[in-house]
Amino acid sequence: MNNTVILINPFEIPKGKEKDALLMWEKAADFMRIQPGFISTKLHQSIDPNARFSLINIAKWGSAEDFQAVISSTEFQELTAGSMEAFPHYPGLYQVVKT
Amino acid sequence: MNNTVILINPFEIPKGKEKDALLMWEKAADFMRIQPGFISTKLHQSIDPNARFSLINIAKWGSAEDFQAVISSTEFQELTAGSMEAFPHYPGLYQVVKT
Repeated sequence: MNNTVILINPFEIPKGKEKDALLMWEKAADFMRIQPGFISTKLHQSIDPNARFSLINIAKWGSAEDFQAVISSTEFQELTAGSMEAFPHYPGLYQVVKT
Repeated sequence: MNNTVILINPFEIPKGKEKDALLMWEKAADFMRIQPGFISTKLHQSIDPNARFSLINIAKWGSAEDFQAVISSTEFQELTAGSMEAFPHYPGLYQVVKT
């Protein structure tokens, strides 16, 4: 049975905040990488600087439960407090349904 | 030299329109698959039916020019006229900047 899920998280990045956004991502990714269920993460940057979502993170997790446990942890909440709110984002867990 | 780009296209799907959205995607994908520069496409469906973006298409293209040529073609415009407007979507071309 394969419970793998794909996190897709599009971020809106206000002009001039690109560097802050990359630092925020690095900090969160460093934490994610050592959590149970983490498989991989890839940060995608838009070629067009005026794209609605300048950054989109796509990560793989062993299960939805693994991912939910991490983001609801106090440690993750504290780590991202005061940084992630600056960037409106729309995380969701997905599965590939057609190719 | 690797010019490969990643199209990421999040779709908002109004309630009750899920089936129409999948048909729209199939029709567009069938056309895309036979175009120069097309590499692959994967339709991602949200696990949570209330997610902001119920469907996200992620496709690989040989270059940005290949992709732009296809979507600006009369054939593609005609194919998707009257179907794609029903689903607000935010396509962008991306490259992986961090893993």
